[in-house]
Amino acid sequence: MKQEITKHSVKLFQEKGFSETSIQDIVDSLGVTKGTFYYYFKSKEQLLMDIHLRYIDELLDFQKEIIENEQTCRDKVVKIVGLIIGDIKSQRANGRVYFREMRNLKADNAEIIKAKRSEFREKLERIIVEGMESGEFRHNLNAKMITLAILGVTNWTYQWMDPSGDVTVEEVAEMFADFVLHGIHV
Amino acid sequence: MKQEITKHSVKLFQEKGFSETSIQDIVDSLGVTKGTFYYYFKSKEQLLMDIHLRYIDELLDFQKEIIENEQTCRDKVVKIVGLIIGDIKSQRANGRVYFREMRNLKADNAEIIKAKRSEFREKLERIIVEGMESGEFRHNLNAKMITLAILGVTNWTYQWMDPSGDVTVEEVAEMFADFVLHGIHV
Repeated sequence: MKQEITKHSVKLFQEKGFSETSIQDIVDSLGVTKGTFYYYFKSKEQLLMDIHLRYIDELLDFQKEIIENEQTCRDKVVKIVGLIIGDIKSQRANGRVYFREMRNLKADNAEIIKAKRSEFREKLERIIVEGMESGEFRHNLNAKMITLAILGVTNWTYQWMDPSGDVTVEEVAEMFADFVLHGIHV
Repeated sequence: MKQEITKHSVKLFQEKGFSETSIQDIVDSLGVTKGTFYYYFKSKEQLLMDIHLRYIDELLDFQKEIIENEQTCRDKVVKIVGLIIGDIKSQRANGRVYFREMRNLKADNAEIIKAKRSEFREKLERIIVEGMESGEFRHNLNAKMITLAILGVTNWTYQWMDPSGDVTVEEVAEMFADFVLHGIHV
């Protein structure tokens, strides 16, 4: 049931916005009572935090796996680009809520999420630096800026990508990885 | 006064969100009455539309100028990247409202803005196609996807860029133009 509540809430948050969605809207969409909601979540904000946490923690886990398993910096970047874009398929609504609604988190919760977002970004930045040092990437890059450029390419897909459209997620991931690699390789 | 209302509203919308900001909040922040607001705007939604229109119309005007004045596709792309990023300096709050609050426009207004956004995107796409045909850019690019990748790099800057930070807008524009050109050049 907790998962059901989360799923329906994400859908409503995405369509109407977090502030415009009431707990009543959420339970109505599921045909349950408010009591059921409060059994799993203290508040609407806690539910939003839950959505944010699950989203970023999953990305961090996959990123860790990629960093441990891939040998070259090139492959690490390609896989991380694919990870973010691929996530759209199953996580599109989550991603939209994640990117749009952070300002509705309480200050201390927002800080926790910001720290995790920074962690993801910094790990990618470290790969860029390593690739510059090893000669895989151009030595004159500003690693911090390049990291933000790469995250722009990937994160922006949430704004326009239609997973049911004529280009598959895999094709987009491949084209964008190629674009990014051309942008940084020697 | 119309400009003052817009400016203060953009600030409030950016901080609190469009739905969370009342007309009362707006007039309170200016020390005027609701009558003043309604003298200039029929509704909060009309004000939001006004913000959207001015933002995209200005970008379209500048883009047109660039296309007419620059000779090579390379220079057109560089200038358009610079245009979007440079806009942050003066337009950061407007940009954030523009990117976040479109769902709060009425359906017919949203369609107008969507059409203008598409126009901007398609004009950039046409430059990519021309550059592929003229041999300036790699011939095997997917122009539509590359355009979305470029807009990802530029538009994402609204999420993180601090115009008062240690990297200037001009430096970011130059680095990102360089990154993008490496991504597409022959």
